[in-house]
Order: sequence, then C-alpha cells, then structure tokens
Amino acid sequence: MNRENKIIQNNSVGLVKTQAFTFDSLKLESGERFGPVTLAFETYGTLNKEKSNAVLIVHALSGDAHAAGLHENEKDPGWWDAFIGPGKAFDTDKYFVICSNILGGCKGSTGPSSLNPATGAPYALDFPLISINDMVNAQKRLVDHLGIDKLLSVVGGSMGGQQVLSWLVNHPNKILSAIPIATTIRHSPQQIAFNEVGRQSIMADAHWKSGNYYGGSAPSKGLAVARMVGHITYMSDKSMAEKFGRTKKGPGETFKFTADFEVEGYLRYRGDNFVKRFDANSYLYITKAMDNFDASGGKRLCEILRGSKVKVLVISFKSDWLYPGYQSKEIVKACKLAGVETTYCEIDSTYGHDAFLLEVDEEAHLIRHFLKKVFYAYEVTGNYGE
Amino acid sequence: MNRENKIIQNNSVGLVKTQAFTFDSLKLESGERFGPVTLAFETYGTLNKEKSNAVLIVHALSGDAHAAGLHENEKDPGWWDAFIGPGKAFDTDKYFVICSNILGGCKGSTGPSSLNPATGAPYALDFPLISINDMVNAQKRLVDHLGIDKLLSVVGGSMGGQQVLSWLVNHPNKILSAIPIATTIRHSPQQIAFNEVGRQSIMADAHWKSGNYYGGSAPSKGLAVARMVGHITYMSDKSMAEKFGRTKKGPGETFKFTADFEVEGYLRYRGDNFVKRFDANSYLYITKAMDNFDASGGKRLCEILRGSKVKVLVISFKSDWLYPGYQSKEIVKACKLAGVETTYCEIDSTYGHDAFLLEVDEEAHLIRHFLKKVFYAYEVTGNYGE
Repeated sequence: MNRENKIIQNNSVGLVKTQAFTFDSLKLESGERFGPVTLAFETYGTLNKEKSNAVLIVHALSGDAHAAGLHENEKDPGWWDAFIGPGKAFDTDKYFVICSNILGGCKGSTGPSSLNPATGAPYALDFPLISINDMVNAQKRLVDHLGIDKLLSVVGGSMGGQQVLSWLVNHPNKILSAIPIATTIRHSPQQIAFNEVGRQSIMADAHWKSGNYYGGSAPSKGLAVARMVGHITYMSDKSMAEKFGRTKKGPGETFKFTADFEVEGYLRYRGDNFVKRFDANSYLYITKAMDNFDASGGKRLCEILRGSKVKVLVISFKSDWLYPGYQSKEIVKACKLAGVETTYCEIDSTYGHDAFLLEVDEEAHLIRHFLKKVFYAYEVTGNYGE
Repeated sequence: MNRENKIIQNNSVGLVKTQAFTFDSLKLESGERFGPVTLAFETYGTLNKEKSNAVLIVHALSGDAHAAGLHENEKDPGWWDAFIGPGKAFDTDKYFVICSNILGGCKGSTGPSSLNPATGAPYALDFPLISINDMVNAQKRLVDHLGIDKLLSVVGGSMGGQQVLSWLVNHPNKILSAIPIATTIRHSPQQIAFNEVGRQSIMADAHWKSGNYYGGSAPSKGLAVARMVGHITYMSDKSMAEKFGRTKKGPGETFKFTADFEVEGYLRYRGDNFVKRFDANSYLYITKAMDNFDASGGKRLCEILRGSKVKVLVISFKSDWLYPGYQSKEIVKACKLAGVETTYCEIDSTYGHDAFLLEVDEEAHLIRHFLKKVFYAYEVTGNYGE
C-alpha cells in the first residue's frame, strides 16, 4: 500500500505559512515567571462568526506546527496532512484548525536554542525546566489571542495526547471535547527508561558540553542514537519484520561494523536525518516534561474529572507497546468513573506507536464522526450541551 | 521474595577457579584460520568413569565462565549459582558441569582486547569477525580436550541458546540433549535494531577511536548507554513497574537532568557498573555474531534436524518481549516436524527476558527432570538411545 501517494493525492489545504505569536511572559508550574514566549503555529480553514468551529491540534515529541499543506519550495506535506483538509477528518470546509508548536521546542517557538534577551546568547541549560502543563498554558494564550473562547476540540497523539489530557484536566471550560490518542495519564518506568537512555546518549556526546554547544559542533551522534532508540519503540516487532525482514544490504563494505541489515541502514538514516532538524537540548527538556507529567497530579483522575461536560474520544492501537492499550483504558476508566461521556476504540494495527500517524482510514473515520456529533450538538442547542 | 538470600543459602559448589585452555588455531566460518585461541572455563562436580555425565553450560552476551560457586575474596557467586550445585538442577553430585566463556569475549578468552602475538598490541578491530558457530567450534575443542566424546547436554539462555542451537545443528553426534532457553533460530529486525543502537552508541563515543582505545580512555559512556538499552529489553513493562513504580529519588539536585526517578538511577548505575567489567569492542563483535546467526543457515531448520537423535527441551517466558515465545515455538515446530523428541514449556513469569536467570523454581524443576530422564535412558541402555 502506497501511503505516500495517497497523502499527496487527497485534497490539500494548499500552500501554508508558519506564523508566530509572542507574548510577554508565562508563569510556569515551577512558580518561575518566564518570558518573552513565542509560539509557532499554523491555521487551516476559516473561523466562523460564532467562533465555535476551532480545533486545536497538538503534536508529539519531534513534531512541529506544520501539520498540513505545503510550505513553499518543499515537497513533503505537514505531518498529519492525511487528516486535515477539505473533506478530511478535520474538514477545513467546516472547521478552523490550529496546530501549535510547543514551548521548549526548536521549531520556531521559544526553547533552549532561542536567544536569551538578557544575555544575547542561547539559553542552553539556563532555559527553565518546563512541564506539559506549561506548554498547554502557553497554547491557551495563543487560543485567547485568536479570540476563541471555547475550542470545539483539542486533539493529539503520544505527547500530544498528554497535552490533550492537560487541557481536559486544567481547562475544562475552554474545550467542548478532547481526543487523546495513544497516550497515558503518566509515564511508566519503561517509558521513562527509554527517554532516559536518549538523554544519556545526548549527554554522553563529547560535543554536548553541558548544553553549551551552540555556535560549535552539536552533539549529533548522541542525538542520532537517541532517535534510533525512539524509532524502535515507535514501530512494532511485526511492522519491523514486515518492513525489513532480515534483508541484507548490498555487497559488504570493508568496515566490520557496517550496516549489514536493512534495518540497521534505516535506523542510521533516520538518526542522521533527525539531527539536521532537531536541537539536542530541546530533546532533553521535552522528554523530561513527558516523564514528569502526571495528568492528575498524583490524585485520582476520576475525582478531578467529576462534573466535567467535556466529551472524550480515546484511541489506542493494538500493536503499540510504547503506549500500550492498558494505559488508554486507564483514561477511559477514569472518565467513566467521573461520569464523563467517553468513547473508546482500540484500532487493530500492526504499525506500533506510529499507527497514530499512519492508520488514516479507521482513525480518521472515528475522529470525523466524533467531531460532527460534538459540533452538531452545539449547533442545534446553541450552547455547549451544558 | 529475597532471591539473593536464597542463592547464597542453597548448597554451593564452594570455592572455584577459572581455568584456561589454549589451542593453536581455529578455522573460522569466514574461511580464515585464526589463533592461538584461549578459552576461559570452569568445571564443577566430577567426570564419571564413562565420561557420560558432562553438561556444558554456555552463557549470554555479558556472561562469563564463572557460573557457580565463589571466587576467592569475592562475595557474589557465579551467574547461575542457583541452578548449579549439590542437589540443584545441575546436580554436581551427579553431573560434571562445564561452563565455557566465548571466543571474542573479554573474560579470559581470546577477543579484541587480547594481545595479537604478531604485533604485541591488542587486536582491536584487527580481530576477525566471528560467528556463533565459531564460538561453538572453539568450545568443541575444549570438550575434546577434556576427553569427552559426548555431552549429556548443552544448555544456555539468550545468546547461550543460540550456541545450543549451533551445537544441535552442527554437532548432533556430540550431544545427547540440548536445552535452548529464551532464544531464537535467528534475530528479528527488532532484535538486530536494539543491538545496532548499542553498537552505534559505542562507536559514537569520541573515545572509541575506531576501536584503538586500549591504553587510553575507554568509550565508557557509549558502552554504558548500550548497556542501559539492553537492561530495558531484559526486563518487562510489568517488572519495571513493580520494581520502580514512579518513585522519585531524594531531594532534587541542582542539575536539571539528574536522575529523578528510581528507574533512571538504576539504569545509570547498571551502565556505569558494566563498563568496569566489559570491553566495548567485545560488545561490538559479540552482538554482531548474534545478529548474523541463523541456526539453519538460510535453509529450513526442520530439514536439517531430520534424523537427529538429540532430545530437546525448549523453555521460554511469558513476559519476555526481547525473545518472545513465538520464537521458541518456531524452534519447537522445526524439531517436531523433523521428528526430534522435543518438550516445550512457556513459564509464566513477569521478569521479562531476565527470567531465565531469575525463575529458579520452575525452570530448575524442568531442567532437573529432563536431565534425569536423558541420563537414566543412557544408564539403562548403555547407549545413547540410538
């Protein structure tokens, strides 16, 4: 099946540009006030008169604001293009879709590689420790700035799903619905362990220099290894077997530890490519925010959600062993116990965690119908079903 | 449950010493003749007059010849002490137990850190690429040297299991039985990928210097990260959750990326400890041998095994996701199709791949009875059941 062709042939939102929104400062969860803060974002479709059709899409660890359409002179569309556009799940003929980059990132938003106005040099490790809730609080400022009082939905997979849960818990009056995908209330030790290995790999690189590598050589080898570990966890045993088998590459080179198997070449390629577009310090800060995240702040999630009117759609994938189905079921259970209207679907996929980006048909179908229902309920009643 | 106490309280083989056996040269699978070769080994119990009670134990990636008993002035017993000793599964009152280290290792056997007699310097990457079959062919020389014509059994888990399969395929007339544990006919792309990440991590370390680090600083950080990745794959999601939960360590240090969670501290400790006792180049050579191994050499295993009189006991563990049960079942299927007498048991354990070292009770029970049966059949018939 040729997914690439499919993505390009479908209706596209066309040429798009990343925008930036800057505000003075943000009070972080740690108590520290930090600023100025810039968030990169993109929008697709048109905000209606009632400002009731806005959907916020939040991204995973290595994502960015470019979720759909094409940037000028680039041939690859945004990372969730198959889901966003005229007639697609996030139908831009109906909805106003916002995709926001995150605080701490390196894709146009303020992060450790940004210049610290106090010193004129990059923050590096002077950048404050941030949390998933901080990322969401910054997004809320963007949504306010766009004049939107209430989002029709907030949607995201993986770390995006953590942000969705943060919206659900901390800003229930700002959203009508929430779609957390392939995510968890809090990381398990295994999830923390994989992230920690990535961090250790970066910090083991002699070029890392306690984060002060800007202007010199970046810790590319360490970051590449971190990304390779990540890629293994994003796929499944089965999807790797289907994609690579034990196929060997062409005639062996003379070096003993060359990439003999296709899977080795693939990982090296992915690792090398990643370092061209991602900042190692951002990788440290973001993974730490994921590991520290606990949607319910140590309390029982069902207690916190009690009385919430937000409609929830939880999606997981059968072969996802990084964010296994049982973690999504914990979210569903907490919602149900709290009396929150919740739908759950585990999609039968072999793609592993990557499925949230790849299982276009079933996932898009679920999202399309869920959004329609929420939007229709609003249009008919003129209120938010409260 | 206090496994440590149990191991020490059980009957021990007492004080032991690692021995060494050196022979002139070995023809490697690559065609190259390599030598001299030294193998480190230990023995426990006494070889009987008929030389019919010898069991060979082969170890996993980071193991060594010290499988049981105590070395002088050391307080930790050998790595499989719970299984080897008077009255234990490998009952040293009955059996003569040999544990052999591997060619390519760094625990007293010839490997990349050994001195090349031609240059007087360590081989480093001049050491030839070796295979699992080469390791086994070297062990066979040791067994011959000990005057043993036929082993009662050859036993090992993980990479040890790969060696067992190599014995089964290549030297069926030299063994009465084989016990491959938590292993596979050939590595899946996922297994190769995890090893490749370890290799990349070592080679990314600035101290690696294309393998020429002997006499200077070793690539310890890269090797530590490789070991950390390994440790995650040796445990299960559940065993990590049980062992660590999300417990945080004491009051935070000032460094932002300190090990906050217990699991992070554990991984760092394990990584740092490993580099004190293992050579990075050996890690490269051994993992490459594991990845390249294909017990049936590209053919169907059942065809190769047809007519074999060897008795086989295959063991796997339910939560082992590194060497999943389906891989053991492939071994069982091939044996059954070939008409080989085969017993299979999947032990219900939460320990993940590490279970082969930790599930003392059930695993030892299975091994004890299997060995007894094979040994009894020999004693009664006076031949090998042929």
